[in-house]
Amino acid sequence: MLFFTQCFGAVLDLIHLRFQHYKAKRVFSAAGQLVCVVNPTHSLKYAPTRCAAAQTSTEQGVLPPCRHHEAVHDPQLVPCTCPLFSCPWEGHLEVVVSHLRQTHRINILQGAEIVFLATDMHLPAPTDWIIMHSCLGHQFLLVLRKQEKYEGHPQFFATMMLIGTPTQADNFTYRLELNRNQRRLKWEATPRSVLECVDSVISDGDCLVLNTSLAQLFSDNGSLAIGIAITTSKVHNAEDEM
Amino acid sequence: MLFFTQCFGAVLDLIHLRFQHYKAKRVFSAAGQLVCVVNPTHSLKYAPTRCAAAQTSTEQGVLPPCRHHEAVHDPQLVPCTCPLFSCPWEGHLEVVVSHLRQTHRINILQGAEIVFLATDMHLPAPTDWIIMHSCLGHQFLLVLRKQEKYEGHPQFFATMMLIGTPTQADNFTYRLELNRNQRRLKWEATPRSVLECVDSVISDGDCLVLNTSLAQLFSDNGSLAIGIAITTSKVHNAEDEM
Repeated sequence: MLFFTQCFGAVLDLIHLRFQHYKAKRVFSAAGQLVCVVNPTHSLKYAPTRCAAAQTSTEQGVLPPCRHHEAVHDPQLVPCTCPLFSCPWEGHLEVVVSHLRQTHRINILQGAEIVFLATDMHLPAPTDWIIMHSCLGHQFLLVLRKQEKYEGHPQFFATMMLIGTPTQADNFTYRLELNRNQRRLKWEATPRSVLECVDSVISDGDCLVLNTSLAQLFSDNGSLAIGIAITTSKVHNAEDEM
Repeated sequence: MLFFTQCFGAVLDLIHLRFQHYKAKRVFSAAGQLVCVVNPTHSLKYAPTRCAAAQTSTEQGVLPPCRHHEAVHDPQLVPCTCPLFSCPWEGHLEVVVSHLRQTHRINILQGAEIVFLATDMHLPAPTDWIIMHSCLGHQFLLVLRKQEKYEGHPQFFATMMLIGTPTQADNFTYRLELNRNQRRLKWEATPRSVLECVDSVISDGDCLVLNTSLAQLFSDNGSLAIGIAITTSKVHNAEDEM
């Protein structure tokens, strides 16, 4: 009986997943775009100041120790690069991708343009939706976070980080795009390096920020579709394009 | 002596204005764009629920009476179309433009694309920056408002309203664009009709919303440049363009 119940649950999950894929494809109808359904990760340990000391990040892939990483022995170890609040992991920049894949089972997608479909937007803050994006020879991390900067008023923050150094990150531009109900919101910026710590990017507000009301306007049945594109930007001069 | 002091003040003002124009042109370098320096209007009487009754607006250019307009005698009179909080004016839709020009000295600019340069972004909430934009045979109203939806946390809200009916408004798409420091934020939507009341659009959050930190990132020396473009959109299908 338990077996049948579980099977039925799995079939329902598959139907739900298929339906969400269909919806995302309907919203972003351009051919060839990968749609990835991203389920939320509820952050049990909420530590907004985790990386407060990480703001003066350097090019060497070494960060000043974080508040709960006071005893970092090997200067080549990178604390804070795992963006999940509850993870105390630290390690070399080169193994961040495998840590995120293996320990946190974060998917990695290929392709210049993908659609990130975050489900269950109604879940209480703090909640993360995370995916890795492999593109132009590098790996990027997209983090969507629901967080209460002001008590009782959750907001959504979306940013893209390069799993690489700040100098490498300067070579790229990422674009996040929401598009629904004859409304469109686009955010374009240079990705930050994961060495700079996602927490500080979000607390600085230097990312795509959505109030709950705006998030609801762009959501479809509790899911938010974000179109993502990454381009090289070494000669990019945003001011000339206006 | 007083005369000289005043003259000196006026010259300083002119230099300041000239400098701001120069800055705006530097930021938005495309040829032929009009730059308009918009000074703030501090709203003395703050009444966020002024138009709460106006949300069920109709196509006839007649609004349900606002809370402080309970005694509207002529159903053809349009209350609330003056977006300035402190103005109890009411009148026909056809005379809204002349009311705004004559009573509030709001500038009207011609051109498909203009740059709105809001000065003194540091002023405390509630503050409005307002301009009229004449384009494609219609007049639009751009309202940038600094408001504390959550006490102690001012936000900036920018929206474009058509001085016309909701049906007329459906024919257009407006775009607001911020562009500075290798960051770009674009908001595209159908303008609302002034009959729907700017206060309710802002309280719904159905507009471009900026946190203070994001507004600072896009500001240059206390001024925020917003690129504005209006297009016709009858056959526009945003979903197909992704």
